[in-house]
Amino acid sequence: MSKENKIPYKIYLEESEMPKQWYNLRADMKNKPAPLLNPGTLQPMTAEELGGVFCEELVQQELDNDNAYIDIPQEIRDFYKMYRPSPLVRAYCLEEKLGTPAKIYYKFEGNNTSGSHKLNSAIAQAYYAKKQGLKGVTTETGAGQWGTALSMACSYLELDCKVYMVKVSYEQKPFRREVMRVYGASVTPSPSDTTQIGRKILAEHPGTTGSLGCAISEAVEVAVSNPGYRYVLGSVLNQVLLHQSVIGLETKAALDKYNITPDIIIGCAGGGSNLGGLIAPFMGEKLRGEKDYRIIAVEPASCPSFTRGKFAYDFADTGMVCPLAKMYTLGADFIPSANHAGGLRYHGMSPVLSQLYADGYMEATTAIQTDVFEAAETFARVEGILPAPESSHAIKVAIDEAMKCKETGEEKTIVFGLTGTGYFDMVAYEKFHDGEMNDYIPTDEELAEYAAKLPKVE
Amino acid sequence: MSKENKIPYKIYLEESEMPKQWYNLRADMKNKPAPLLNPGTLQPMTAEELGGVFCEELVQQELDNDNAYIDIPQEIRDFYKMYRPSPLVRAYCLEEKLGTPAKIYYKFEGNNTSGSHKLNSAIAQAYYAKKQGLKGVTTETGAGQWGTALSMACSYLELDCKVYMVKVSYEQKPFRREVMRVYGASVTPSPSDTTQIGRKILAEHPGTTGSLGCAISEAVEVAVSNPGYRYVLGSVLNQVLLHQSVIGLETKAALDKYNITPDIIIGCAGGGSNLGGLIAPFMGEKLRGEKDYRIIAVEPASCPSFTRGKFAYDFADTGMVCPLAKMYTLGADFIPSANHAGGLRYHGMSPVLSQLYADGYMEATTAIQTDVFEAAETFARVEGILPAPESSHAIKVAIDEAMKCKETGEEKTIVFGLTGTGYFDMVAYEKFHDGEMNDYIPTDEELAEYAAKLPKVE
Repeated sequence: MSKENKIPYKIYLEESEMPKQWYNLRADMKNKPAPLLNPGTLQPMTAEELGGVFCEELVQQELDNDNAYIDIPQEIRDFYKMYRPSPLVRAYCLEEKLGTPAKIYYKFEGNNTSGSHKLNSAIAQAYYAKKQGLKGVTTETGAGQWGTALSMACSYLELDCKVYMVKVSYEQKPFRREVMRVYGASVTPSPSDTTQIGRKILAEHPGTTGSLGCAISEAVEVAVSNPGYRYVLGSVLNQVLLHQSVIGLETKAALDKYNITPDIIIGCAGGGSNLGGLIAPFMGEKLRGEKDYRIIAVEPASCPSFTRGKFAYDFADTGMVCPLAKMYTLGADFIPSANHAGGLRYHGMSPVLSQLYADGYMEATTAIQTDVFEAAETFARVEGILPAPESSHAIKVAIDEAMKCKETGEEKTIVFGLTGTGYFDMVAYEKFHDGEMNDYIPTDEELAEYAAKLPKVE
Repeated sequence: MSKENKIPYKIYLEESEMPKQWYNLRADMKNKPAPLLNPGTLQPMTAEELGGVFCEELVQQELDNDNAYIDIPQEIRDFYKMYRPSPLVRAYCLEEKLGTPAKIYYKFEGNNTSGSHKLNSAIAQAYYAKKQGLKGVTTETGAGQWGTALSMACSYLELDCKVYMVKVSYEQKPFRREVMRVYGASVTPSPSDTTQIGRKILAEHPGTTGSLGCAISEAVEVAVSNPGYRYVLGSVLNQVLLHQSVIGLETKAALDKYNITPDIIIGCAGGGSNLGGLIAPFMGEKLRGEKDYRIIAVEPASCPSFTRGKFAYDFADTGMVCPLAKMYTLGADFIPSANHAGGLRYHGMSPVLSQLYADGYMEATTAIQTDVFEAAETFARVEGILPAPESSHAIKVAIDEAMKCKETGEEKTIVFGLTGTGYFDMVAYEKFHDGEMNDYIPTDEELAEYAAKLPKVE
């Protein structure tokens, strides 16, 4: 089993090699992502309008389609040093298990208490809120990684943090909620009676267990109606992809150090923040015509926005208080089947990634849930790490690609994003072990019904 | 907040700098730890007798008081590379929060799915079992870290793994159990009707929720009565401390790289494996008279074997099927108060550490539970990592020592072991937040009662 290869199991950059700037993919895109629209006027949101919801500097980042590199403030770099660089791992044991000639690498973002890559943007957003002199921030969380990450960042910077947690998760994941309490956040199950929109939804649907779109509406309402608060979001937005570019920049620096050029880059996709971050510098090279890579987004078959959604303007939230974004979407009311475990349940997709996909720069595919958990378990048993259900979508497709190499004998280099750990997802693993997990896929009729309700925007 | 120091936040050794040998502290001890005794004859256990319970090579390691260095087999080193080297972290943010001139470092062993240092010995024990051609191993687990670690190691080596889990943990920690299932282990709540001793205990105490000592007895019985099986133990034994020396060796190599000499080394102590591993090379220097360090063991006030136990021969398990060990012990029947959260609940202590403590080479102190959780939360909020309750005993005393430095102005260098993460301990954190945690400390009368039952051995 001895490995005499020169490539270590884990490539860690030195602290001095960590990125000092984020990379803004939009600067290299010929077709820029479409602007956000004001939900009232359907006109592009101005910086001033966005400033009512988001922090000033984040608004600038959101609207910046031109500057390719943006400095990472020293304070954020210091925070990054507490849990970054994350390792780029050579999956020697998985390769051996599969008997594939492919070389598999994964960028592991789970070695921090939030358990995922979400912390990369949480600290950035909290930092700019603090810099602006705000009292606190509000947000929503579904599975809980984003809420945890934001609580950690706010606790570090001594900012108040109000989290609206989808009710079903709040009840089923008390431990996630408890972790947020360790970091001093207030966590409210959504829909709640603390907001107008929450009370309205509760009145209309008394038994509802909540949705991400609804929790977003509540968090935005609280932010805009409380002086000194702003709303922050963990995915989808351009600014979030910008912050997450640290994943891809580190990955590329680590590969470059050993003269490795990937053939295929794979990431799971819910709102797109991890995928957008991982592929950023590679996609940049592709956009500039310097290199070519196969880039694959993997989404759950139960929430297939890229592969079965429409590329259209849609609301970001159920309450329709947020700006509209042009993106691949299943419709703002779409909620994946109750049987769907883990995250990746957002109805839309990052406008940046949506534009790139529409322009043919990347592929997308889906995976069904039981296949995903099977891949997760295979991975855990040989590589040690128990992966998050979200990340396991990427594992599933990485294994598929590696098995194709086994057939053809090609020694392709595959890189995938292992966004997080599954320590708070054991209920889902239990269902998988007990054979209680199904693979419900929405029918064409269902999707058509949601699509018919998309707002009409030219 | 910017840190221009030369010492990075995290010191990672290169793969090539990782230890190739374990360090056997006993070789440098003038007073060797007392031998294990046969529970029937009360004579020192021979290698042959021990071979009925433990794997052959592990028996050699258990009895080896002479060889200072023992090669780590290549296969184990390969496995170590999947999750090691673990980082030695400079706690810049904690120092700033405390306003102390002390320099605080911690060796973080929690970045693997077992969530603790236990994996270092689990893979070694599983490897030797595999090498001997065994079918599988049996063990007990309380809080669950050890059982998880062993399942991971066995899954990697394709060995069968039977875990007896203390019933109260089995019921209160279903997620730990589920992680073990991911790795293919069979997990049985103890006491169970699958063993003679289990049935006996159930008959005598029908409502019992189990204890570590009882689970050990069951696991040993299954090992000795099933051909092709041996028993493995996650702490206390000499062999386990040997394997865990990888923690201290890495710590020392990382410190040496930056010419840092610690003044104080702090570790939590239950059975002693983490502490024994962390201090090994430092204690070696101290024993050889080359250097001096303050070495502090921290134990729960609710289970104070070092500070309030007897240094005497005692049974390692409730069923009295295991060898007797000379150690600091509270008596084999001692079980900490039901309110005690987390691990560190074993009645005895590593014979190696017991001898060193008796000979004055180290100090021991206790911490009460609510202080420990308060320290844990302080740490989590500034350093990001949510620590295990066990590890937080070391955090508590590290903070105390750092605050003494603040008073005196001394710039001491403090190193402590952060053995694991608390992701599966959120019930305990919840109790802490809700004010439902108490600080029960056993009375002198209680302890005297247990001590009176210690076996009479000359």
